[in-house]
Amino acid sequence: MTARPAATQPLLHDVAYADTDAGGIVYHARFVEMAERSRNLAMRALGVPVAEMKERFGVQFIVRDVRATFHRPGHVGDVLALASGIVAASPARVIWRTAISRDGAAICDVEAQIAAFDPAAGGPCLLPAALMVRLDEAPRLPPARRSPMMKLHDRDGARA
Amino acid sequence: MTARPAATQPLLHDVAYADTDAGGIVYHARFVEMAERSRNLAMRALGVPVAEMKERFGVQFIVRDVRATFHRPGHVGDVLALASGIVAASPARVIWRTAISRDGAAICDVEAQIAAFDPAAGGPCLLPAALMVRLDEAPRLPPARRSPMMKLHDRDGARA
Amino acid sequence: MTARPAATQPLLHDVAYADTDAGGIVYHARFVEMAERSRNLAMRALGVPVAEMKERFGVQFIVRDVRATFHRPGHVGDVLALASGIVAASPARVIWRTAISRDGAAICDVEAQIAAFDPAAGGPCLLPAALMVRLDEAPRLPPARRSPMMKLHDRDGARA
Amino acid sequence: MTARPAATQPLLHDVAYADTDAGGIVYHARFVEMAERSRNLAMRALGVPVAEMKERFGVQFIVRDVRATFHRPGHVGDVLALASGIVAASPARVIWRTAISRDGAAICDVEAQIAAFDPAAGGPCLLPAALMVRLDEAPRLPPARRSPMMKLHDRDGARA
Repeated sequence: MTARPAATQPLLHDVAYADTDAGGIVYHARFVEMAERSRNLAMRALGVPVAEMKERFGVQFIVRDVRATFHRPGHVGDVLALASGIVAASPARVIWRTAISRDGAAICDVEAQIAAFDPAAGGPCLLPAALMVRLDEAPRLPPARRSPMMKLHDRDGARA
Repeated sequence: MTARPAATQPLLHDVAYADTDAGGIVYHARFVEMAERSRNLAMRALGVPVAEMKERFGVQFIVRDVRATFHRPGHVGDVLALASGIVAASPARVIWRTAISRDGAAICDVEAQIAAFDPAAGGPCLLPAALMVRLDEAPRLPPARRSPMMKLHDRDGARA
Repeated sequence: MTARPAATQPLLHDVAYADTDAGGIVYHARFVEMAERSRNLAMRALGVPVAEMKERFGVQFIVRDVRATFHRPGHVGDVLALASGIVAASPARVIWRTAISRDGAAICDVEAQIAAFDPAAGGPCLLPAALMVRLDEAPRLPPARRSPMMKLHDRDGARA
Repeated sequence: MTARPAATQPLLHDVAYADTDAGGIVYHARFVEMAERSRNLAMRALGVPVAEMKERFGVQFIVRDVRATFHRPGHVGDVLALASGIVAASPARVIWRTAISRDGAAICDVEAQIAAFDPAAGGPCLLPAALMVRLDEAPRLPPARRSPMMKLHDRDGARA
C-alpha cells in the first residue's frame, strides 16, 4: 500500500439529550452507536454504502468485538468530530478505529472488529477480494491508546 | 476474601424489536446497555443501588473502558440471561464482566472498567473503602474469552 | 365480549442510566421503547409471542402512530410498572395503551396504533381472524388522559 | 407575526443499523429521537442552543406530549431530511412539528409539546418573554396529517 489519506472528512455529531444520561454526560454506549455512523460514512466515501454490501458483494458485516475507551466526557451541545480509519485488515476481519474528538481534544476511541457473513450460507465467510480492494483505499489509523490499567488486564486476559 | 457466591440471580431480558437491527439480530451496542442493567441489579443485590451512590458514598461511577465480544447472535423473542461479576477490583477501578447467554449458550461478554468520580471536586477519585467492602461481596468471574485475532491486536496495542 | 381481565401482570422496569438524559430524568423516547416491551409481554401472555407472528399468522405488526403523554418524570433507580391493554381493536388496527406508573402514581401513557403487514405481498393487510380471537382475550384499558392543551390541538388537527 | 421563513436548512440523517429493527425498517421510537436533533438544530439557528437555555433563560425544556405518525418506512442507507417548525406557541407551551421525508416523500411526522421547567423552583413555569421573541422567528408548519382512524380515536379521547 502506498499513499493513502490520513483521514477523510470527519462526521460532525451535535450531542442531543438523547445521547446523554443522568450523570450529565454522553452515555458510554452511545459512542459505540456513533462509531457505526462514522464507519458508514467512511464506507460511503469508499464507494461502498453499507446498504449495498449484500447486493454488490453478497455479504453482510457483523461486529465480532467492539471496545470503547473514554478520555473525556461529552455534553449536550458539543459538536463532536468522528474520524474512522482502518487499524488492520485481512480477509478474515477488519479492525476499524473511530477517533472521537471535540476541538481537537480526544473524547473517545472506539475499535470494532468486523467480519463478513454470508446470508446465503448462513455463516461467516472471508471478505470478498473486490471489497478488500476498496478497503485498501480507506484511511489508516494506529491502534487506540489504552489506559495503563486496562492494558494490564489485557495481558492477564491473553494469558488466561 | 473467603466464600463468595459464584453468581447472583441473573437478569432475564426478553429481546424486543427495540434491541435489534435490520440485520435481524440484536444490535451490538445494545448488549453494552443491557450490561449496565445487569451491573445495576448486582449492585442492588449488594445493598448499594446506583441511584444512592452519590448520597451514601459521595461518588458517582464513570465507565472508563468497555469491551463487548460477540459469540452468537440474539433474536427477537430470545430470553437472555445476564450475570455480572467482578473480574478485578482496586480502589482505582473495578472491572465488571457481564456474561450474556441463552439456554446456557454464550451470546456476548461485556467487560466494563468502572472508576469513581467525585462530583464535589469535579474529578476522579478512589473508590471509598466502605464501598470496596460491599464490592468484596460481589460474585467473581474470570475474564471473558477473546477471539484469537483480537488477542493479537491487544498485544500490538500494549506495545504501541 | 364478556368478562376479561382488567390487567395482566405488569412489567417491572428498573430505570438505568441508559434510560435517562442530562436533564436527570428518563428520556421521553425511552418510554416509547418500554411500551413495546410491555406490549410484547402482553402478547406473550395471550400465547402469541411477537417473534412467532409471521410464522403462525403470516403477518408482521407495524406501528402506524404512537403517542406518549408525560405526567411525572422518572429517575435512575425507579422501579416502573408497565401495564398494557387494548383501547380499541378492529381487523384494520389495534390501539394499545401502556400505562406506566411508579408506586401507583402515573408517570407516562403510551398509545400505539398497530396494523398488520403482509411480508409476502409487501403491503398492509387486515389482522387475521385467528389473531383477533386472541386479542379479544387481552386486558382492556380506557384511552389515556391528555392535557387540555394537547386536546385542543387534536381538535384543530381533526379540522385541518 | 409577519414574514417568516417557511423552513430552515433541513437536518440530513443517514440511516444506520443503529436506527433500524429486525423488521428491516427504522424503529418507530428512533424517529422521536431524530426529531429532538432537528428541533435542536432549529433552536441553534434561532441563536438559542439548547445547551445554553438554562444559563441564558433560567429554564429547561420538558416534553409534555409527543406523537409520531408513520407514513412510509425508512431503511438503512436512506438519507432522511428533517425539517422542524412551530405549529402553535404560547408562554405555556410550544408545539413543534418535525416533518421527516426522503426525496420529498413523507416518511414520518413528529409533534412534540414542549413546556418550560424552572430548575431553581423545581416546577413548571411559563416560557420567558425573551425566549418567546426568539421562537417567533422560527419557521411555522401546519399540524401533521393524521390517519382517519387515529383522528376518530382523538375525538373519542377528547370526549372521555
